Amino acid sequence: MAEVQEGGFRAFHPSWEDPSCARNLAVWVCGVDDLRLLPYTVVPQLGMNDVRVKIKAVGICGSDVHYVKKLRNSRVAMKEPMVLGHESSGVICEVGASVTHLRVGDRVALEAGIPCNSCVLCKEGRYNLCKNVRFFGSPPTNGSLTQEVVHPASLCYKLPDNLTFEEGAMCEPLSVGVHACRRAKVEPGRRVLILGAGPIGLIVLLVSRAFGATTVHVTDIDQRRLMAAASLGAEGTLRVSSDMNDMENEVMELKQLIGVPIDVTFDCVGITKTMQTALKVTKSGGKVCLVGMGQDNLTLPLTSSAAREVDVLGIFRYCNTYPLCLDLLQSRKVDVRPLITHRYRLTEDDMKEAFQTTAMAGDAIKVMFTI
Amino acid sequence: MAEVQEGGFRAFHPSWEDPSCARNLAVWVCGVDDLRLLPYTVVPQLGMNDVRVKIKAVGICGSDVHYVKKLRNSRVAMKEPMVLGHESSGVICEVGASVTHLRVGDRVALEAGIPCNSCVLCKEGRYNLCKNVRFFGSPPTNGSLTQEVVHPASLCYKLPDNLTFEEGAMCEPLSVGVHACRRAKVEPGRRVLILGAGPIGLIVLLVSRAFGATTVHVTDIDQRRLMAAASLGAEGTLRVSSDMNDMENEVMELKQLIGVPIDVTFDCVGITKTMQTALKVTKSGGKVCLVGMGQDNLTLPLTSSAAREVDVLGIFRYCNTYPLCLDLLQSRKVDVRPLITHRYRLTEDDMKEAFQTTAMAGDAIKVMFTI
Amino acid sequence: MAEVQEGGFRAFHPSWEDPSCARNLAVWVCGVDDLRLLPYTVVPQLGMNDVRVKIKAVGICGSDVHYVKKLRNSRVAMKEPMVLGHESSGVICEVGASVTHLRVGDRVALEAGIPCNSCVLCKEGRYNLCKNVRFFGSPPTNGSLTQEVVHPASLCYKLPDNLTFEEGAMCEPLSVGVHACRRAKVEPGRRVLILGAGPIGLIVLLVSRAFGATTVHVTDIDQRRLMAAASLGAEGTLRVSSDMNDMENEVMELKQLIGVPIDVTFDCVGITKTMQTALKVTKSGGKVCLVGMGQDNLTLPLTSSAAREVDVLGIFRYCNTYPLCLDLLQSRKVDVRPLITHRYRLTEDDMKEAFQTTAMAGDAIKVMFTI
Amino acid sequence: MAEVQEGGFRAFHPSWEDPSCARNLAVWVCGVDDLRLLPYTVVPQLGMNDVRVKIKAVGICGSDVHYVKKLRNSRVAMKEPMVLGHESSGVICEVGASVTHLRVGDRVALEAGIPCNSCVLCKEGRYNLCKNVRFFGSPPTNGSLTQEVVHPASLCYKLPDNLTFEEGAMCEPLSVGVHACRRAKVEPGRRVLILGAGPIGLIVLLVSRAFGATTVHVTDIDQRRLMAAASLGAEGTLRVSSDMNDMENEVMELKQLIGVPIDVTFDCVGITKTMQTALKVTKSGGKVCLVGMGQDNLTLPLTSSAAREVDVLGIFRYCNTYPLCLDLLQSRKVDVRPLITHRYRLTEDDMKEAFQTTAMAGDAIKVMFTI
Repeated sequence: MAEVQEGGFRAFHPSWEDPSCARNLAVWVCGVDDLRLLPYTVVPQLGMNDVRVKIKAVGICGSDVHYVKKLRNSRVAMKEPMVLGHESSGVICEVGASVTHLRVGDRVALEAGIPCNSCVLCKEGRYNLCKNVRFFGSPPTNGSLTQEVVHPASLCYKLPDNLTFEEGAMCEPLSVGVHACRRAKVEPGRRVLILGAGPIGLIVLLVSRAFGATTVHVTDIDQRRLMAAASLGAEGTLRVSSDMNDMENEVMELKQLIGVPIDVTFDCVGITKTMQTALKVTKSGGKVCLVGMGQDNLTLPLTSSAAREVDVLGIFRYCNTYPLCLDLLQSRKVDVRPLITHRYRLTEDDMKEAFQTTAMAGDAIKVMFTI
Repeated sequence: MAEVQEGGFRAFHPSWEDPSCARNLAVWVCGVDDLRLLPYTVVPQLGMNDVRVKIKAVGICGSDVHYVKKLRNSRVAMKEPMVLGHESSGVICEVGASVTHLRVGDRVALEAGIPCNSCVLCKEGRYNLCKNVRFFGSPPTNGSLTQEVVHPASLCYKLPDNLTFEEGAMCEPLSVGVHACRRAKVEPGRRVLILGAGPIGLIVLLVSRAFGATTVHVTDIDQRRLMAAASLGAEGTLRVSSDMNDMENEVMELKQLIGVPIDVTFDCVGITKTMQTALKVTKSGGKVCLVGMGQDNLTLPLTSSAAREVDVLGIFRYCNTYPLCLDLLQSRKVDVRPLITHRYRLTEDDMKEAFQTTAMAGDAIKVMFTI
Repeated sequence: MAEVQEGGFRAFHPSWEDPSCARNLAVWVCGVDDLRLLPYTVVPQLGMNDVRVKIKAVGICGSDVHYVKKLRNSRVAMKEPMVLGHESSGVICEVGASVTHLRVGDRVALEAGIPCNSCVLCKEGRYNLCKNVRFFGSPPTNGSLTQEVVHPASLCYKLPDNLTFEEGAMCEPLSVGVHACRRAKVEPGRRVLILGAGPIGLIVLLVSRAFGATTVHVTDIDQRRLMAAASLGAEGTLRVSSDMNDMENEVMELKQLIGVPIDVTFDCVGITKTMQTALKVTKSGGKVCLVGMGQDNLTLPLTSSAAREVDVLGIFRYCNTYPLCLDLLQSRKVDVRPLITHRYRLTEDDMKEAFQTTAMAGDAIKVMFTI
Repeated sequence: MAEVQEGGFRAFHPSWEDPSCARNLAVWVCGVDDLRLLPYTVVPQLGMNDVRVKIKAVGICGSDVHYVKKLRNSRVAMKEPMVLGHESSGVICEVGASVTHLRVGDRVALEAGIPCNSCVLCKEGRYNLCKNVRFFGSPPTNGSLTQEVVHPASLCYKLPDNLTFEEGAMCEPLSVGVHACRRAKVEPGRRVLILGAGPIGLIVLLVSRAFGATTVHVTDIDQRRLMAAASLGAEGTLRVSSDMNDMENEVMELKQLIGVPIDVTFDCVGITKTMQTALKVTKSGGKVCLVGMGQDNLTLPLTSSAAREVDVLGIFRYCNTYPLCLDLLQSRKVDVRPLITHRYRLTEDDMKEAFQTTAMAGDAIKVMFTI
């Protein structure tokens, strides 16, 4: 259909000639740093168990920026233009023939991945690992940063009345935090350390607290982010450097700061320095959860941490999290509203500024489109 | 008491001047490559809950050789001469006042570590991680390669009649395999891969089969070891090289050989190449158990394996394994007898040859002292 | 469509007037003890992800007999005539457009329940508890004791070459044993007791052994069944009475017979006497798994067993078991062939005799139709 | 030593003739309803790993009242006079030679049971099930409702500065709630129902909330207790009757009140009606935790709940809970102070009134001795 060419795709014309769909504008990645607001006409047909959703809010994620900058995210590369976005909520505007639990007008959060339901991992309930999952805005599946999508009804969750569309969209990154805390078995009594106070680190902080962690400490290289962590409830923070040589000292400072054994460390950066810190600082029998993906290859003292039965757990997206996310938000056990720092509309100008703001980070935590 | 000096300890005289103890000969490490058969007179006093055991069989472990060669094993260094040995069995010759379940004459296997029973990890049942454990032949605790020891009765397990003392001593390395298989949740349906067919790799093979693994495949650089693995029940074996450049090909060969997703990989070598292989070859949602400790720092593509939720589990020794080991041996679900390739007596000459044989590996799997 | 009337359904004519389907004969329950061999014409349409299967072997289960005798099984009642049967295997004769892993001519075992894939329990991997499951031969879903069915491809599992269709059909009851052993965490070191040596009790025995149970003991009121249990590998058996007054003595006999604490007891009868026995005989911290459903209300000393943390686990059908069942059968770790004691053809006479044989039990264990 | 005789023990003289111990007054049960304030002189000797504690606060538990009224509690009977009490805190006044983590003057909460540390269950970390445990105030072990006790240092936990002795004593019943919530896996997303709003029911409510339960509902026959539950954070309450005939209606009312599936039900009463309610109201795949022990034999529809995989979990005391209890109290995630409704001194008059108040319940929740 289209080919990558000098940082772009040749001959890309996403159907704007079809006037009937002129209204379904979407944010397309058409090449490196080449974002375009164009119609999205190839929305899947509405099946019996599907709903059509008018999208109302979409958050931008670090992986979205990767696609814009590199046409790839970790192992997954784009092969043709793609609609971005996977953190979304909206209003049902049409329901398939077999759908019973949703009605036109319902406000919903959209779980981003559609698993195959047929493979062993799906059947076992770990559907996030399904090899055939179609995930919004992950090649070759188009995303939800558009005006209208079709989605399985079973992956659309009704928003409680006290939640906004933005909070609905935040269920997606919040799910990552829930999945991480579940895998690492955060529970009352556990002392948690989070390395990295970016959006995901801050979400893991909020979720760890909601899961009853006794204490949560946070490190980062940026003082502003640590202040955000403190204001969101971290018991303590430590500013660290990006210099490998400082690690041993920082490990000692962390141990002193926290004072008791650390049960669970979340590495929300994912580089050699943070993982080395995590492996050294976590108690015998504790867990390190690798959430960030900052570096492909890490050099680690893994034999000595393994000999203390410090387990290393990865996470990939999430499964079975949306109902809980809505519970946490509705009850205000988790409040994600302070994380939303910037808001944009679906216009050419806003689109560009939104992605620029996300890429630069700065004081931005979560950038949100209102559609 | 004694100091390390040019690969040895100065002025070491382990009490041989005390004639009353002349009979309790033990294998002492007195310096680098300096093994001596000397009396062990500082045997602890018999407490109310202890038993005195005449040692009958002691196996040699790779870590014993490390102490002989380097006066240290991984993080733990000797600071004075030490009796070696921790894989042992014997006959009760005296029982403490409060001991009820053992009698003089009982044949027992000795669990090597005495935990503190007071720390959080002990109380939670993960006593192998106890920081205050006293473990036979791990500094500063003397070992059991001697004629007589005192040990808590609760850590001495009666041998069933159909088992030999050698099999009793084998409970110790067998425990490592049991602990590894438990941590990695080997069970019927699981496809297992073992990297490294040394003594521990072969034991993990035997235990994986006893735990019902559907298939077990084994790799090694040594064809003789692979033949041993095959004769012990491996479904398939692959000879690999020690060259990092061959890894990608070997990963592909392994996937072809096994044909189905690998649920659990045990790395019984513990170097960069084997762990990279393990992380790449194990299925999404599977487990890698790091058993071997061949290298301190490993360079690993951990972010991409974490993003497939391939968990990395370490193991340290074992806990709650002895009763099961005896069950497995008694019922012949595990037969460790083929692993015992060499036998020695407690004499100067035999002692030296025994450790030489173990160090050279060659066709030796397990070297055993009969006392 | 049809109404229950004096032990039958009025005006039942299952489409035999349609000559095109005359070949798809099926065993219909048309009323109490009213079995008929009639065409089954309302086979669902072949969907994109479905396969059409020519059925080759179907086993009869106790629940099938309940429907014949009472038009109900526990909580579930028939409201109209129904095709019986759910233990089945066959040959693929047509594949849906999207099916890739199966081809015409493939021999398959059919997992009996089609879950909704949309509810929380399905998504979490416990799809056996799905409220909207459609299960062969469980009202209102027709069964597989017929010549041809349509079934989702993802629930059809290829038979290894060394297995027969009968063994394929046996995956269904075998799954119950696998699910029970998984829920009760049978593993090496566990001592298992099975109360009741009917078909399911014997299957639990076979699976417990394959899961590595250290010992398995079996009780029953019928000496012939105990002999079957012994020949299938039970370490010991005890003949018990159906008299409640004998229970205390039997509990003592069992404890003596087994000699060590019992970790897991499977009650494959499910009456007050067996459950009382189970709760009393199982060790503190052990598990009782209630498999049989002999009685609706049980009178139990539950507070005293709960105060020993003897957990009571129920099971309902199974989930994620078929691949393992095929592994166990292919490798002969489980051999179900001795359980198949009677074979019948799909004729009027055979049909009646088959159900009579099953209902009377006697020396029958598993009765199988060959189609 | 002493014999039971018409509701008492003959010839009981607990050492009051020893003047040196006149100060260590204790509450002795000397017969049915025969409480006496007498010296407790047979305090165990201070071992190397023990501490001597001046007791400061002791709560009264329902089981204490059982001993006073019936000289037994469930399966355990007194055979001679016994000091009561097991919910206690105090100040260290002497430390054994090997004790390092505690000093004279430290304020501590005392974990009530001393496990053997030698049996399989102790080694596995389930030491609450140890058959040889010595538990304060459980025959034949004397309790802690006295002025001074000797206790293992490893079972004494330092009180944070912001906690009172009363709160320290409350760690004991709080531990029961923690153990129950752990066993039932209460966590964010779980909907909890508690049957019975006595002291333990209210504690389970507090702990369920601290463990992140999404909602907690409570039933009782007493409106005052339900008001207490509501004021402690229950989302909803239902007044039920003690009449079995009302059960079906109450089950329906509960389902309507809660509106969503109930994941976990705690039966803190333990009679046929509450357990039937629990089994019927809990969702498929959910858990019923039997905490109360109101009745020995229960008549239950266990086959139908088992066929929905509603598991029944018992609890016995607790293990590994004290550090968490102190965390929860210190951080005010759990506040037990509203539960303490009555306070008494260690005098003859107060002693009698204290037990009378506890036995009558009324508006008393927790009755506390200040010593």
